[in-house]
Amino acid sequence: MALPVRTDFKHLLRLIQKFNSPRRVLSAGACTESKKPAGGGRIFSGIQPTGVPHLGNYLGALENWVALQNQYPSVLYSIVDLHSITQPQDPAQLRSNILDMAASLLACGIDPEKAILFQQSQVSEHAELSWILSCLTSMPRLRHLPQWKMKSKQKNEGSVGLYTYPVLQAADILLYKSTHVPVGEDQVQHLELAQDLARIFNKSYGDLFPEPSALLSSIRKVKSLRDPYTKMSKSDPQSMATIAITDSPDDIALKVRRAVTDFSSEVTFDPETRPGVSNLLTIHAAMAMISVEEAVAQARGLDTGAYKTLVTEAVIQRFTPIREEIERLRSDPVHLEGVLAQGTLRARELAAPVLREVRQRVGFCS
Amino acid sequence: MALPVRTDFKHLLRLIQKFNSPRRVLSAGACTESKKPAGGGRIFSGIQPTGVPHLGNYLGALENWVALQNQYPSVLYSIVDLHSITQPQDPAQLRSNILDMAASLLACGIDPEKAILFQQSQVSEHAELSWILSCLTSMPRLRHLPQWKMKSKQKNEGSVGLYTYPVLQAADILLYKSTHVPVGEDQVQHLELAQDLARIFNKSYGDLFPEPSALLSSIRKVKSLRDPYTKMSKSDPQSMATIAITDSPDDIALKVRRAVTDFSSEVTFDPETRPGVSNLLTIHAAMAMISVEEAVAQARGLDTGAYKTLVTEAVIQRFTPIREEIERLRSDPVHLEGVLAQGTLRARELAAPVLREVRQRVGFCS
Repeated sequence: MALPVRTDFKHLLRLIQKFNSPRRVLSAGACTESKKPAGGGRIFSGIQPTGVPHLGNYLGALENWVALQNQYPSVLYSIVDLHSITQPQDPAQLRSNILDMAASLLACGIDPEKAILFQQSQVSEHAELSWILSCLTSMPRLRHLPQWKMKSKQKNEGSVGLYTYPVLQAADILLYKSTHVPVGEDQVQHLELAQDLARIFNKSYGDLFPEPSALLSSIRKVKSLRDPYTKMSKSDPQSMATIAITDSPDDIALKVRRAVTDFSSEVTFDPETRPGVSNLLTIHAAMAMISVEEAVAQARGLDTGAYKTLVTEAVIQRFTPIREEIERLRSDPVHLEGVLAQGTLRARELAAPVLREVRQRVGFCS
Repeated sequence: MALPVRTDFKHLLRLIQKFNSPRRVLSAGACTESKKPAGGGRIFSGIQPTGVPHLGNYLGALENWVALQNQYPSVLYSIVDLHSITQPQDPAQLRSNILDMAASLLACGIDPEKAILFQQSQVSEHAELSWILSCLTSMPRLRHLPQWKMKSKQKNEGSVGLYTYPVLQAADILLYKSTHVPVGEDQVQHLELAQDLARIFNKSYGDLFPEPSALLSSIRKVKSLRDPYTKMSKSDPQSMATIAITDSPDDIALKVRRAVTDFSSEVTFDPETRPGVSNLLTIHAAMAMISVEEAVAQARGLDTGAYKTLVTEAVIQRFTPIREEIERLRSDPVHLEGVLAQGTLRARELAAPVLREVRQRVGFCS
């Protein structure tokens, strides 16, 4: 089934991509500003198939992904399903979540012509390189990484996969000789492991991997609508805390109306003392593609209650075409799987020669 | 280059295989005797590419491998190079060791028509299944396995690969839905992990893997020639302790002559109080394909010094055609690589549908 193209929707997507173009990025390795590399450069980033992303994912990562695909000559985005099974998963739900995530990424503006979009488990080289790198990683090196400390504590005990998955992340990155990796602050230590492993491999077997640099984007951080001191998170037990990008206009209106603010009715931006209303201004500005100052100006004369209507409208306007596109894509899983299969082929084309080289250097073959 | 066949050599190999045929095997799972399975059964076993095997490997494993290929309808023998890199390896040496091991296995009587002989790293499904199984393995489950405790202590600290390699071993076995695994006593706990993981996977995702049974063969254990209280081992720092199957007749004679015995000159079999001379009797009997009683009878009237000549002759007679065949095979690495490549193809044919099924059950694909 061919998918008809909606002109108005395409126009809106282009607009979104235009507004998302060059943004300031920081290289975390040396913490110096990094520009688009003159000689090329390759981006790798992964996202777990948690299903449909929320507003926090959208502003925290996906908007940036869309921008980066226009800035770098080679870009890979992976739905990292091998990582997702470090926590128990229901197989049918996982399958559905993978397709939801693929549809969401496409609907948010990831363009398979510009970025290779693929499912990690379909490229066997990830697990293979991960094994080889695990033989270059000492046990204590992983013990203090934040994800293990956090997640193993939550569950009282973690699996071997949970312990070792930063090595798989390193393999994800190095497999494509990636030069740049957009990361959140909580992922910096994991990227440092990838940098270390590139160095260790190169030292043992001769230069092969570039040391990937972190792209710490100056992304606005979105807070929970119920507790503006914490990050907006899919795992938040309060359904009112999070806006999914597929939420209906009514749901969006309800969630914004219920958003926790404070006892002052004036709308001012001060994340320290007024995190609730400041979070709404952040969301409004990002969704309407205006600066926070402009958002504050638009709120002049409105109390927080009336201002929430403005915020609601901005979110609905931005998410409606995305939601409709996700529905359209999800109605044709065969097409969606075809897009992922294409991505898999292109990813393997890049991965296979690198792994071949790794095997040779390690001594597995001549 | 076609390899010419030497008739006399082929005859000897056939003879060796005949003498190696059915031997008593014990199923370690329930510790009951197990016969050749009526409905089939599949053997999997792996050997690290340590180069040319020694007498202990030959009598402790390889003789048994040759016998098993005649007893089971489906047999896979893998040169497990992914395991070997859990310890540091020189790449050129590793490559050479892989080919030495392949040549040795063939020369010892492994028949690629009867057993699939392949190199583990060339079948990417091993590492992939290992990742999936690692997400079903708890961290403490591996902490007390003997290999980690021993090897990490030797080196003061082990790699992540050294810690997790019993999971890769489980993947090696389960990937082929193997039903029987010949193991040494020191590997029983590792096989138990594979059994556990088969159960855990089946419980989580529906029955897929048979629980593999251990084949604890009643193999004679060969001791060091310099210290008959310890196992003959490749890593023994004393070169006189170990006879490689490619040792020249002169080297074999020298090593047997220098073998530690005791102050009695009579030849009697008593492994407890006379381990040195008993080890020589074990070697003699195994090499000459006679019983220990017959070996003792042949030694009647000889002192240990004169008896050593008998032992030397038996070893030389058995190993000379094997050494010559190894030399012949090693002189044509392209042919040898071709044999391994054929094995890889056949192994993948079995592995690919199993991994496809695993991926579906886990929820990676539909």
